[in-house]
Amino acid sequence: MHVVLTSSLRRRSPRAFRRTRLESSHEQGVAVLLRMSTLFLRTLREDPADAEVPSHKLLVRAGYVRRVAPGIYSWLPLGKIVLENVARVVREEMNRIGAQEVLFPALLPRDYYEATGRWTEYGDTLFRLKDRKGADYLLGPTHEEMFTDMVKGEYSSYKDYPVTLYQIQTKYRDEARPRAGILRGREFVMKDSYSFDLDDDGLKRSYEMHREAYIRIFDRLGIDYRVVFAMSGAMGGSASEEFLATAPTGEDTFVACRNCDYAANAEAVVTTPPPVVRTEQPAVRVLDTPNTPTIETLVDHVNEHFGLGITAADTLKNIVVKVRTPGSDKLETLIIGVPGDREIDFKRLEAFLAPGVPEIFEAEDFARHPGLVRGYIGPQVLKSLGIRYLVDPRVVEGSAWVTGANQPGKHAAHVVAGRDFEADGTIEAAEVRAGDACPRCGHPLSIDRGIEIGHIFQLGRKYADAAGLDALGPDGKPIRITMGSYGVGVSRAVAVITEQRHDELGLVWPREIAPADVHIVGTGKENQIEVAAQLAETLESRGLRVLVDDRAGVSPGVKFKDSELLGLPTVLIVGRGLAQGVVELRDRAAGTKEEIPLAEAVDRVLAAAQA
Amino acid sequence: MHVVLTSSLRRRSPRAFRRTRLESSHEQGVAVLLRMSTLFLRTLREDPADAEVPSHKLLVRAGYVRRVAPGIYSWLPLGKIVLENVARVVREEMNRIGAQEVLFPALLPRDYYEATGRWTEYGDTLFRLKDRKGADYLLGPTHEEMFTDMVKGEYSSYKDYPVTLYQIQTKYRDEARPRAGILRGREFVMKDSYSFDLDDDGLKRSYEMHREAYIRIFDRLGIDYRVVFAMSGAMGGSASEEFLATAPTGEDTFVACRNCDYAANAEAVVTTPPPVVRTEQPAVRVLDTPNTPTIETLVDHVNEHFGLGITAADTLKNIVVKVRTPGSDKLETLIIGVPGDREIDFKRLEAFLAPGVPEIFEAEDFARHPGLVRGYIGPQVLKSLGIRYLVDPRVVEGSAWVTGANQPGKHAAHVVAGRDFEADGTIEAAEVRAGDACPRCGHPLSIDRGIEIGHIFQLGRKYADAAGLDALGPDGKPIRITMGSYGVGVSRAVAVITEQRHDELGLVWPREIAPADVHIVGTGKENQIEVAAQLAETLESRGLRVLVDDRAGVSPGVKFKDSELLGLPTVLIVGRGLAQGVVELRDRAAGTKEEIPLAEAVDRVLAAAQA
Repeated sequence: MHVVLTSSLRRRSPRAFRRTRLESSHEQGVAVLLRMSTLFLRTLREDPADAEVPSHKLLVRAGYVRRVAPGIYSWLPLGKIVLENVARVVREEMNRIGAQEVLFPALLPRDYYEATGRWTEYGDTLFRLKDRKGADYLLGPTHEEMFTDMVKGEYSSYKDYPVTLYQIQTKYRDEARPRAGILRGREFVMKDSYSFDLDDDGLKRSYEMHREAYIRIFDRLGIDYRVVFAMSGAMGGSASEEFLATAPTGEDTFVACRNCDYAANAEAVVTTPPPVVRTEQPAVRVLDTPNTPTIETLVDHVNEHFGLGITAADTLKNIVVKVRTPGSDKLETLIIGVPGDREIDFKRLEAFLAPGVPEIFEAEDFARHPGLVRGYIGPQVLKSLGIRYLVDPRVVEGSAWVTGANQPGKHAAHVVAGRDFEADGTIEAAEVRAGDACPRCGHPLSIDRGIEIGHIFQLGRKYADAAGLDALGPDGKPIRITMGSYGVGVSRAVAVITEQRHDELGLVWPREIAPADVHIVGTGKENQIEVAAQLAETLESRGLRVLVDDRAGVSPGVKFKDSELLGLPTVLIVGRGLAQGVVELRDRAAGTKEEIPLAEAVDRVLAAAQA
Repeated sequence: MHVVLTSSLRRRSPRAFRRTRLESSHEQGVAVLLRMSTLFLRTLREDPADAEVPSHKLLVRAGYVRRVAPGIYSWLPLGKIVLENVARVVREEMNRIGAQEVLFPALLPRDYYEATGRWTEYGDTLFRLKDRKGADYLLGPTHEEMFTDMVKGEYSSYKDYPVTLYQIQTKYRDEARPRAGILRGREFVMKDSYSFDLDDDGLKRSYEMHREAYIRIFDRLGIDYRVVFAMSGAMGGSASEEFLATAPTGEDTFVACRNCDYAANAEAVVTTPPPVVRTEQPAVRVLDTPNTPTIETLVDHVNEHFGLGITAADTLKNIVVKVRTPGSDKLETLIIGVPGDREIDFKRLEAFLAPGVPEIFEAEDFARHPGLVRGYIGPQVLKSLGIRYLVDPRVVEGSAWVTGANQPGKHAAHVVAGRDFEADGTIEAAEVRAGDACPRCGHPLSIDRGIEIGHIFQLGRKYADAAGLDALGPDGKPIRITMGSYGVGVSRAVAVITEQRHDELGLVWPREIAPADVHIVGTGKENQIEVAAQLAETLESRGLRVLVDDRAGVSPGVKFKDSELLGLPTVLIVGRGLAQGVVELRDRAAGTKEEIPLAEAVDRVLAAAQA
């Protein structure tokens, strides 16, 4: 995918940083010669016992990373090179849009995060510690407060703006379930950037520039991804998109339309409501429904005994939760009505209620609400009980439902929205299913899994409000700054690339990220290894990054296996054919092999590296 | 200073890493164009209130760093570039000696440090924390344990060795007195490397290679430094040298000989003892010495009342301490005898007694030792009291002293070592003074102050013993690995460079470390700024790193002051002379100014950058 710089990008270029020589991947690097005879690398034939996903298995087996503690990893030499390659791509693309690199500490005093309430809000995910004087510190999970404070410290006039700052830095989150090696670590490398603008239009431009930069970054990283709409959630802003790498092992679910380019986080999907029902409905009828603990048994019972011919989608399920307001002891009872064929998606529910936090309604809560007949709740009585009731958008005016009759063992049919009950509003809490209508074009949606690799977000004025970040306007009046927040998981990207690019033999790196351009394998006799070493030096002198397997006493089979496992894009084998002046050129990604004359080897490898 | 690769260096080259294109500083970089109209930079006219040393004042005033908490700083764009430039020099020189870069986490589980006892030994300097499950973690102050464990995990055969690994990483130490900005921070960037060898000769070679690499590094950083002998201290090894940047604000004292090239940490200086005294001495004579609380009053009293004609150097001062053995409650009483003209240097005392920790002998301790008459202790009775007695090397056999008579108000003269008392050994605890004899050539030593910027250290087998790090030898028997440990303070070096290279106007960067090669200042009229911007683009296209002051509405005076404060090596002023086709070329370090034709400006700046 190629990206054209849009006019909005050009409008603010050139900015402070312009690094022209970095723009081509072939000019970026330095020639390198890595020799396997001395390289600190031991490959493993067996998968690590704790590894479940391919990237974890392969990065450990190929000697790129090693585990130190749950979610905490060390990078071995090849892994460090790959990590730096990803960071370099990110840095180049951030510099290209005029973002300026800074570096914050990871160890931060509590007061910055106290001011925004996040010292508490972060809960167990925050690593907290005390210094020798007993002062509270934290390990930065994200740096909104720090960036805001920095800009406030340096800038004062409207003439100073806009500005975008970024850092590539080690971050800390005490994940409840660190998993999948470096995919979800507790110590990880992130690029985070923040834009500071005078007005909403400026923020939109900054957001668009980041969007374009992220497209360039993930294209260069060779990642297959979708840009999906995301809920703003607890961050308190408005527009937000996530970059999700498609992966069957992904923890994030997203819906995508194959007809238009709509894609969204499950939390962000907006349900298309059916039309309002205008037909006259029979009066409510209370049904005896003993032994119908599930929707399925209820539907069977109702159809068998009363001949109503309904499906689960005709029943209205009412779920009670209590909602906690953060920083207060207040708990509100809330009932949610969804069609009986759908489960509640707790992530969607949480996102909708944020910053409120939904909690399970326990037996003792029911005991305090005798009006709620557990298992037989219907919305007919909620007004009189004074309980807030939110419904799925499918529960439109005039629609009729089989629902609880608020008496043990009884349900009610022909309960009509707007006639027999009144909801206090709608809620997006029901699960999204493959085949649901695309909110943009109506085509059936599909559901995919993905891994979040980037997030762009119009944060708005939340942090500027907390810090009092104003610019002095041309009229001498303060202008409250509006911010954007943008993140890329740098160490995670290493895992994501391998998650998407591997086969049963090992890793398959895109060239720009690979630890070297070419892996030259000298097998068998000493002169074959010598020729391999000479080729390596020649190619290095021509500017290539070269890994040469110059190990003596290692069998060709082991060397081939290692070259497949390590996954460099081009492999050159100097083996038995050398006696006939022939070497073998392999393309790791394509899986092709070709015998070529030794005399052509250098030019062919160079051509492959520049392809 | 130029360094020739020694044969011991060549012996192990080429190693895994060889990055030929990095070896020249003029090929290393990428062309950069920084524009002050958009650069995130605000210079300050006033020194920060908390700053005491020049580097702290200037790095804050020039907008390179900002304080976040005591000993914890953020890096602004120009500071980040400078920090990276230092890191790049260090990386290149480490790669040159075949060291391989890895990256460890900063957040480390307790067990690694428990095994070596350092979880406890580090005391308050270690940042400790718990994760959400209550497991103990620390923020790595240094990574010996981790490197040892990594090598143990990958290598097994003697054929694998030697190997040297390094990282450039953020480290944490909860210093009791963080000071001087980034000079002694609590979060800081360090390069640490470790060599792993099969035998002592290998370790010596690895040590020598690091020594050469460090000389190259600090030469390239433009630092004025001395390589000084250092005590091995608590690290448990043998040979050790420190690289100390000379600086009047330095916390470390070192002695240096102006005649030979001997230099040593105060802790490492070995006293040259005078010859043994063979002359017959009078018998001990007890003197009445009321009201002589100090050595000075004692000498005056003795000379006045008894006509002995002594100086303070003829008196023997006996200091009582208690020595704690780490990890035990045991306290040993120890008395130290030094000539009365010298103070005890507590750092030398600590280094000598390590791992024992000396503590003050309090009034209640005296109460428990009635044989010790406070203020009048003499060594004559210590044998009978069973107290260990160590003396300064100047207290040679046959030397006679005025010392305590172990009775209130009384001293004794003609107390002869070997006749009237017997020491249990010597101790290097007396202060070293300018004029003391060089232990190598006898020439008077001078005393200088410095800042530690590097440390190389033959660690030996301490950590390999703790981890059980062996290689399987050719005979099938295990070989215990011997290690070297080597550190460079990367962020500290930024402060040290500025500490040494500044004037009353601002910073004076060496070219390789400067945020850019040239600072082009467009002053006054719009066309002058335009020409400055054009020159900037031309020079950038020729491969230079350029900072251009293209700010509109800023006075020439402010721009000149900023250029002096920021401290780039070459400054080009496009000012009023432009009407006559003339611009001004300044050399920041030399302080020279020269009017040159505009047509020559590009070539002259390029020539200056390549000089």
